[in-house]
Amino acid sequence: MDTTLMIRPALITVGLLAAASAFAQDSADAARDPKKTEVWTPVPAVVATPPGKAPSDAIVLFDGKDVSAWESEQGGRVPWKVAGGAMTVVPGSKGIRTRQRFCDVQLHVEWRTPTDTKGFDGQNRGNSGIFLQELYELQVLDSYNNPTYANGQAGSIYKQAMPRVNASRAPGQWQAYDIIWKAPRFSVGGGLVSPARITVLHNGVLVQDDTVLAGKTEYIGAPSYSPHACAPLYLQEHDSRISYRNIWVREL
Amino acid sequence: MDTTLMIRPALITVGLLAAASAFAQDSADAARDPKKTEVWTPVPAVVATPPGKAPSDAIVLFDGKDVSAWESEQGGRVPWKVAGGAMTVVPGSKGIRTRQRFCDVQLHVEWRTPTDTKGFDGQNRGNSGIFLQELYELQVLDSYNNPTYANGQAGSIYKQAMPRVNASRAPGQWQAYDIIWKAPRFSVGGGLVSPARITVLHNGVLVQDDTVLAGKTEYIGAPSYSPHACAPLYLQEHDSRISYRNIWVREL
Amino acid sequence: MDTTLMIRPALITVGLLAAASAFAQDSADAARDPKKTEVWTPVPAVVATPPGKAPSDAIVLFDGKDVSAWESEQGGRVPWKVAGGAMTVVPGSKGIRTRQRFCDVQLHVEWRTPTDTKGFDGQNRGNSGIFLQELYELQVLDSYNNPTYANGQAGSIYKQAMPRVNASRAPGQWQAYDIIWKAPRFSVGGGLVSPARITVLHNGVLVQDDTVLAGKTEYIGAPSYSPHACAPLYLQEHDSRISYRNIWVREL
Amino acid sequence: MDTTLMIRPALITVGLLAAASAFAQDSADAARDPKKTEVWTPVPAVVATPPGKAPSDAIVLFDGKDVSAWESEQGGRVPWKVAGGAMTVVPGSKGIRTRQRFCDVQLHVEWRTPTDTKGFDGQNRGNSGIFLQELYELQVLDSYNNPTYANGQAGSIYKQAMPRVNASRAPGQWQAYDIIWKAPRFSVGGGLVSPARITVLHNGVLVQDDTVLAGKTEYIGAPSYSPHACAPLYLQEHDSRISYRNIWVREL
Repeated sequence: MDTTLMIRPALITVGLLAAASAFAQDSADAARDPKKTEVWTPVPAVVATPPGKAPSDAIVLFDGKDVSAWESEQGGRVPWKVAGGAMTVVPGSKGIRTRQRFCDVQLHVEWRTPTDTKGFDGQNRGNSGIFLQELYELQVLDSYNNPTYANGQAGSIYKQAMPRVNASRAPGQWQAYDIIWKAPRFSVGGGLVSPARITVLHNGVLVQDDTVLAGKTEYIGAPSYSPHACAPLYLQEHDSRISYRNIWVREL
Repeated sequence: MDTTLMIRPALITVGLLAAASAFAQDSADAARDPKKTEVWTPVPAVVATPPGKAPSDAIVLFDGKDVSAWESEQGGRVPWKVAGGAMTVVPGSKGIRTRQRFCDVQLHVEWRTPTDTKGFDGQNRGNSGIFLQELYELQVLDSYNNPTYANGQAGSIYKQAMPRVNASRAPGQWQAYDIIWKAPRFSVGGGLVSPARITVLHNGVLVQDDTVLAGKTEYIGAPSYSPHACAPLYLQEHDSRISYRNIWVREL
Repeated sequence: MDTTLMIRPALITVGLLAAASAFAQDSADAARDPKKTEVWTPVPAVVATPPGKAPSDAIVLFDGKDVSAWESEQGGRVPWKVAGGAMTVVPGSKGIRTRQRFCDVQLHVEWRTPTDTKGFDGQNRGNSGIFLQELYELQVLDSYNNPTYANGQAGSIYKQAMPRVNASRAPGQWQAYDIIWKAPRFSVGGGLVSPARITVLHNGVLVQDDTVLAGKTEYIGAPSYSPHACAPLYLQEHDSRISYRNIWVREL
Repeated sequence: MDTTLMIRPALITVGLLAAASAFAQDSADAARDPKKTEVWTPVPAVVATPPGKAPSDAIVLFDGKDVSAWESEQGGRVPWKVAGGAMTVVPGSKGIRTRQRFCDVQLHVEWRTPTDTKGFDGQNRGNSGIFLQELYELQVLDSYNNPTYANGQAGSIYKQAMPRVNASRAPGQWQAYDIIWKAPRFSVGGGLVSPARITVLHNGVLVQDDTVLAGKTEYIGAPSYSPHACAPLYLQEHDSRISYRNIWVREL
């Protein structure tokens, strides 16, 4: 065409949502009214954001003392040590998972690798992991001057996606992950509709940028998807005295 | 981590959907059973597909005779000529639109440009247009040996996206568009959530490949989005005796 | 803000692409000039589209006689029968693949299932398959009054995605697939960057609508991705005398 | 099909990228070797992340003292006040923009609204804005107990997308935006290929979650896209004594 629809205002407004009527261009005057594009409702909920603490609308999973949101991966009480405002993995115990199940989330986790690094290197130094929906691992590792495979270092989606950069801090320093997780979607028939996606800031630096996951984390072989529902967050026990603190989650 | 989740089957199956239990790997034997990945329901509906005709589940918008699915853009009866199994634009009349409103659709349209091309060129030769949701134009034009701007020739999203190739047939020959249309989505507040997207086969050749639209079609200036609902399909009257036949639509 | 950028034209035009200068709104007059949004180059290539034949820019893989674009999956000559303008699977021979490798393609394939259906049902009746990049199967099956699992019938992405509807024609009738295939992308490290996606029209009806694939086709177990390059198209031998004709492909 | 590709290993490995050979399943043994899925190169660059400071690979745009990365929107020196480790808008002066141009970025900005709120409300209280590519505004506003339209409060994409929640802190407190920005892409012809997208954490809380922009920010009327290139970051002067500090950007 080379005559525009703009000269047929009656046509354009046909079919507009009632809720969208503020956008209708009823006249030349209206089109110049800035109020037409103001949206007043819904009013976003107010969330307090005290520095260094969980936002007021978050589910606090660990505040430094209370581990009641968690259980052993075998069921039963958390087999890790809680002291000094942190919980620390007890090597040889088991991993832990939240009692609550989650799908899409914003997740904040702080973690610290042990200063006693002597005799440990590669995957043996400061190893743990944060599993979204119990199946998809964001690696926790001491990757400060500790070479290993790139898709297995801190900030990697284990054996799927290396981090964009190595933003690791030294052993003994607290580090933070800020995670935006989109759960995979499956059809009624079990087919994949959309793969899982993850964005991660490691100590404030973007290390995973809307990364597509190829399936659940596998130590051996290619990752694949099988349909599943919302599931717990899981923290791995992997023979290292990793400490965690200030863990909170917001459902998206 | 470097121990795999696969050795923790109890963990993996926690949280699986009941409907997904066919996928659970209960044992090594089960993992080797091909029946585990068969999905028997729902059973896809049967659709008859007689060659050259509308599929049995389509809404037939024009079968060569009946124009009752349409009205003038001004309301009232269709001001075009119906004869010989086609409906033909009457120059100086008005465009027509469906009485029914649509959002996401598969749309099939056949069209023919006039053989009397003498004295007409560029946008003046065989011009019409198919507007999805009355706002977004897939150009109809005689683009057979008829230069014009690329984003205004047949197969273009008018003034937004030129076709990948020029698949036009000569005047007097019937041509076909097979269209997959995804309506734009808007938030409650009127913000764009996802832009409109279109895929078009022109005479069987891919000319628009999941093209993102920047907004409604504009003759002058940049396209923009304003929130709207499902809306009629619209065929443009643009001073050319374009003919249409075999128009059908399937809601997606 | 509530003063608009539109009153700072100098700002807006800073950083505009030279090629985009046609869009710059230099003045109120210019903003009303429809020529500003015309794009004349590049000129889309002209493609002839004779009804029922391959477009002039397609790679013809099978025209009814010549099988030189193909080889046995074991290497060597095509072990199928070529007669009557079709090539027909010889049960007990092997599948065939193109000598050329492809990534993103538009693919047209016509196929026909045998009329001798006596004693055959489910997956045993008229079974073959079209494998994109040798790994991802679009099922070919006689699904006319022949129940099987929905994610294994004609038009399915085998064991991943059932077709939206069953658009099958009867045995002995030619059927068509029009396919738009987007190859999966992998990072240098082998991670999945974007999964494969497929759109399929079966006899003109949309049966796969930008479907996301979870990985390569598996008869047993969950599909997964391993990184790979462009690869041949592959037609399966599966004990049924399926015939093929009019196969062409356009690289996207 | 119902025989799997997995029994044709020769086929599967055909076409694999040389770089992907680590993934080839040469034998049953190899398939059980976890080393096959380790990726050692490239080695992600090391980035220091001192708490509260810019990462070592960031471009520091403002460190509390040096404004040489900026200029007035009219050209020339920055017309704002630099003192106390912050730069503060001088009402009635002009906005400022970076000398450098950016496309996709991670951007960190800290800002503070004035404590003197008496007599100011709505859009008049603590108003400024951060414009990505000079065209797309992330609103800066005192939204602490200060009602205004939701798509115009702090954390909104001005007049396009309200924030998910109101994460505002009180006047006089420092607040932070962590932004992931994906520039829009345009075709050679000027058509939109992919719209701009933004993710924003406000004081650590997700307020924009991969939000799609409908076009450049408009005070009046619907937003639209016109093609443009990388462009400066711009901070708005809007009659309020907003302070900024600790601004850094990383190109993605």
